[in-house]
Formats: sequence, structure tokens, C-alpha cells
Amino acid sequence: MTNDVTVAIDAMGGDHGPVVTVAAALKCLARDPALTIILVGRQDEIELQLRAQHAKPDSRLHIHHATEVVGMDESPALAMRNKKDSSMRVAINLVKSNEAGACVSAGNTGALMATARFVLKMLPGIERPAIASELPTMKGRTFVLDLGANVDCTPEHLLQFGIMGAMLVSALDQREAPSVGLLNIGEEEIKGNEIVKQAADLLRQSGLNFYGNIEGDDIYKGTTDVVVCDGFVGNVALKTSEGLAKMISTMLREEFTRNLFTRLAGLVALPVLKAFKKRVDPRRYNGATLLGLRGVVVKSHGGADRYAFEHAIEQAAREVRNNVQQRISEKMAILQKDAA
Amino acid sequence: MTNDVTVAIDAMGGDHGPVVTVAAALKCLARDPALTIILVGRQDEIELQLRAQHAKPDSRLHIHHATEVVGMDESPALAMRNKKDSSMRVAINLVKSNEAGACVSAGNTGALMATARFVLKMLPGIERPAIASELPTMKGRTFVLDLGANVDCTPEHLLQFGIMGAMLVSALDQREAPSVGLLNIGEEEIKGNEIVKQAADLLRQSGLNFYGNIEGDDIYKGTTDVVVCDGFVGNVALKTSEGLAKMISTMLREEFTRNLFTRLAGLVALPVLKAFKKRVDPRRYNGATLLGLRGVVVKSHGGADRYAFEHAIEQAAREVRNNVQQRISEKMAILQKDAA
Repeated sequence: MTNDVTVAIDAMGGDHGPVVTVAAALKCLARDPALTIILVGRQDEIELQLRAQHAKPDSRLHIHHATEVVGMDESPALAMRNKKDSSMRVAINLVKSNEAGACVSAGNTGALMATARFVLKMLPGIERPAIASELPTMKGRTFVLDLGANVDCTPEHLLQFGIMGAMLVSALDQREAPSVGLLNIGEEEIKGNEIVKQAADLLRQSGLNFYGNIEGDDIYKGTTDVVVCDGFVGNVALKTSEGLAKMISTMLREEFTRNLFTRLAGLVALPVLKAFKKRVDPRRYNGATLLGLRGVVVKSHGGADRYAFEHAIEQAAREVRNNVQQRISEKMAILQKDAA
Repeated sequence: MTNDVTVAIDAMGGDHGPVVTVAAALKCLARDPALTIILVGRQDEIELQLRAQHAKPDSRLHIHHATEVVGMDESPALAMRNKKDSSMRVAINLVKSNEAGACVSAGNTGALMATARFVLKMLPGIERPAIASELPTMKGRTFVLDLGANVDCTPEHLLQFGIMGAMLVSALDQREAPSVGLLNIGEEEIKGNEIVKQAADLLRQSGLNFYGNIEGDDIYKGTTDVVVCDGFVGNVALKTSEGLAKMISTMLREEFTRNLFTRLAGLVALPVLKAFKKRVDPRRYNGATLLGLRGVVVKSHGGADRYAFEHAIEQAAREVRNNVQQRISEKMAILQKDAA
């Protein structure tokens, strides 16, 4: 495996645009000597940010001019049809043409998904792309998919998510058979709907290391390496987690700033609270990957700051270096041969 | 409204049985002079626990003997058919016969649901019972339903959940028009599945204070007073929250016990951490209510300790005192009249 990797960045995407994307790119380049970055977007705005950071293009940092920008609330269909020279689309084009191994965008998720699917096409045997993201657990981390690309899934889709998730972890961690859990609910009488029941059957026959049904709390227990669910359930689980984490950290802050005594206690506890905060910092888990495409596409949170966006870039580079794409298509080829 | 209320308790239910249920009953009786409790279950075991707590039956504390116990993992259908003298069933019978205004059980959820539905029947116009529970939010609290009783819901079911949830909050808080949110996902292109879209239409026309679609993080933001979702999604959201809260508290404890310095910092911060812990203590939110039945049935967490079980008893008493039942059936009658 060669270490050299080129990542195309939609420099205009996200709530903050080049202020965040350019700064994050520079940080990543400084840390990773085998990384090359192509900043895609309005040349003048990118150059302005580079100057502000006392940097300029060189052999590992290129600017690729693109005139248009996809708005965060723009209709994905219209963005795809009308904005052929958007920073997002051009970044994806660079993956298609093999000028970049991966692209990263903090832009409009729907537009990114639709454009990536249209430009790159799906891997053989995969019907739908899925959004997968790493989450912290008691034991380390787990990958959950789908997080919102598909609201109505068939059992076959859930099976494909399981395959893609397992191959992702297998490639990233160099492990043979990561465990796969199917997100379900716990009551005896009412164990899941028909689709989930059928998906469990398919996963059981798939040759994957299928753990079986798991419940919501198993995500953070780290019961399995991969958690499979439809995009509606996955999105609700993710957003609910974000909301709860935010409420907990707000309440913790409120308690430590209640009065002089609690402020002093907070001061004493500060290093501990910082260590704690670092462990659960969601920015470290920024960078959801769009699996199932013929190319690596990583979606950053729209509101990502520099630190968070760096993680999305790193996630993209890691996937290219570990041949995630290839691992998924090889597995699909084997399964399709077996089925034939 | 009279303040006197009688609650029947399935004394044998839950992981701990009479050790917890009897102790919690005594605490509630001491705190609430207008409360009467009927402890249902094996007389000898209940008496043993009462003696251990230096208590005995009196005008506000009765024992109702029941010979059988429903196991936590027992099939709900079999439990219903074969155990006609279970503590759970007899407690529900006491609600049916108006000897008690409500019943509380920490037993097998599926069996409780099936038996309550069979014995008490549904309120007119309600097709399915729903499990509703209070959750803490940044602004106070919200009620979420359904939390797992119904995995496949029609738009009409979701509408009925909205009505029941709104009437529950309206009755408990003496408020006219609590806001109702429909749990959905956020991406523009893919705003929910067909069922949720149709449910939104029904809720919009319902005359309820319908806020519109909300996302997972809105639960803890406290965006609406009521959150409506199907039982699969609700159960995953609840269990995921439990898992995340547990992970966060474990990590916080780990950081404060890492070494001598962090332990000292933890000692200084202890009163603050305790105040924080109290605010997010899930035991304070124990007691999910089974809405839609002709009678108040409250389900406690199976693993509830005394403190948590007290909250379930209090929830039951509160519902009876605030005529939650009546409020729901009146609203259903109005809606059905309007529709006719």
C-alpha cells in the first residue's frame, strides 16, 4: 500500500466555508507529509484565506477554481441540474477522473449524495449509498449506518449496509471479521417489524460475523463493531445523542458556575473536566463516509470548526490508504458469485 | 377534584419484587396522606417485607393476595392465558372494578400491555395503546410516545398518539394547548417516509397545537411538550439515550478516579457533581404510562430501585387526580363528532 494520497476539498462548503476548510487543510498537510490537497472553489476567496494563514499553493497544495457554490438549503435536484461548476461537483469530478483519491465536503448533504451518486455511480451489487459514521463507545468505537440517506429500506438494503460496514471496519482496522449488529427493539412480544426480521435472516446467512439483534444502548456499550439500521432510525438515534450530549454538558457547566463555591470547585476540577470533554468531543468523530459509491466521499458536519474538519480530511485519507472501496467491491463480487 | 386516590401495585413485578415495591409503597404513603395503596401478590412475601420495614396493613395499606407471578421473560400471550391469578392481572382487575384508580407494575412489559388491553379495553376511537414517558429537557420536560408498544404505525395511529400525548400534558399541567412535534429526520431531500408525511397532514388538521416536524435533538432541547413517533423509533431513541448517559457518567467517573490528584479534584467537586447527577437522574423519570386504555396503568422500569419505583407510583396517582383518562376520551369524542 502506497502512503501517498490526494484529497479534493469542497473549500466553499459548510457554514463557514474557506475560513474553516483552508485552515484545516493546512493543518493536515503539516501533519501528514504523504498528503496532497486540492482546494476546490472560488480562487480569490481561497487565496485570501491562504494569505491570512501565511500560506500559498505548492507541490502538495493546489487550488482548482470552481465558480459556483451549492447553498446549504438548496434543493439537491436543482443544485445537481443547474450548478455544474459548483465546488462540490468539481471536487467529486476530481475523484471520478482519479485526480483525487477522495473528496470531502461540509456542504448540503442531499446535494452531495445526489451528485456523488450521479457522477461516481454505485459499486456493483449495491443499490443505495449509505451514510456511515464512527461513534465513541465504552470499548472504543463503532460504525453506525445508515444515518439518513435512506428512509425506507428493504431487508436487502440492510444486508448491503451490513456488508459495507463490515468491510469498512475490516479495511480500516485490518481485521478479518468485525461483528455486525442489527438495531432493533427489546420487548419480547414485539421484536421488530417485518423488514428487520427478514434482514436478520439475510444477515445470518451472509457469512458476515453477525451478532444478531441489538438495542439502542448497545451502540454506546460497544457491543458490536458495526450497527446496521435504516436511515430514519439511524438519523434519529444520532440526533438524539447529539441533543442529549449537549444537554448534559450544558447542565454540567450550569452546575459548576452556579456560585462562587461551585466556580472554585470547577477550577480545581478543570483538568479532569477537560480530559473528560476530550474523550467525548464529537469533533473527533466528524466525517461521515458515503459508502457504496465508486469513490471515497466524506461528509463533514456543516457546522464543523477547523479541528472537526481536520478529522473529516483524515477519515478520507484513511479510507483511501486502506482500500475501503476495493474491499467492499471484492466482497460484493464474492457474494454475487456465491449467489449465482 | 378529590385528592383521594387508590393505587394497586403489582408487588411481585420487576427484578426485585416486594423488596422494592413494598418499600416504595411505604415511602409514598408517608408522603401523601390522601393516597391508599393495595399491594397485590403473595400475602406471605408481602407481609415479610412489611415486617422487615416495621409496618403492617392499615386503613390506607391493603394486601390483596394473588397466587401467581408473571416471569420477566415469559411469553405475554401465555401469561395472559394461563396466569389468571397473577399479581399483575389482579392489580389490573382492581382498576377494572374501580377498587383502584390506577395500577403500577415493574413486570414484563409485553404481558402488562396485553393483559391491560384485554381486561380494560381501549378508549373509544383509540386503536392502539401507546407507551409514553417523561424525559428531561433543557427547558423542563417533554413526553415522548410511543416508546415501543407499536412497531408498525399508520398515520392515524401517530395522530392518536399526538392527541393522547397532548391531553396527558394538558391534564397534568392544567394547560390548554401543549405543543406537539412529529419526530422526523432533517435532510431536505429526504424528509421522512410516507407515513410520517401523512401523519403530519393529519396532525396539522387536528386542531392540536401542532409544531411540525422535529429532529432527534429537539427532544432534549425541549422544543415541544409532546414528541410523537412510532414505537420502533421511540424505543431506539430512548435506549440510545440510556446508553449514552451511562457511557458519559462512566467516563466522568473514570476521569475523576484516574489518580490521586483527580480523586482530590473529585472530592472538591463532589457537591457539584451530585447536584448535576440529581438533575439528570433517570430514576426521577421512571414510570411510563400506557395511554389509550380505559384505566390508568403505569409501567415501571424492571430494574427500578425503591426511589425510582416511588416515582412510578406518584405518576399513577398524578394521572388519576388530573383525570387524564377523561381528558383523552372527551377529546376523542369531540374529534369523532367533528368528523361525523
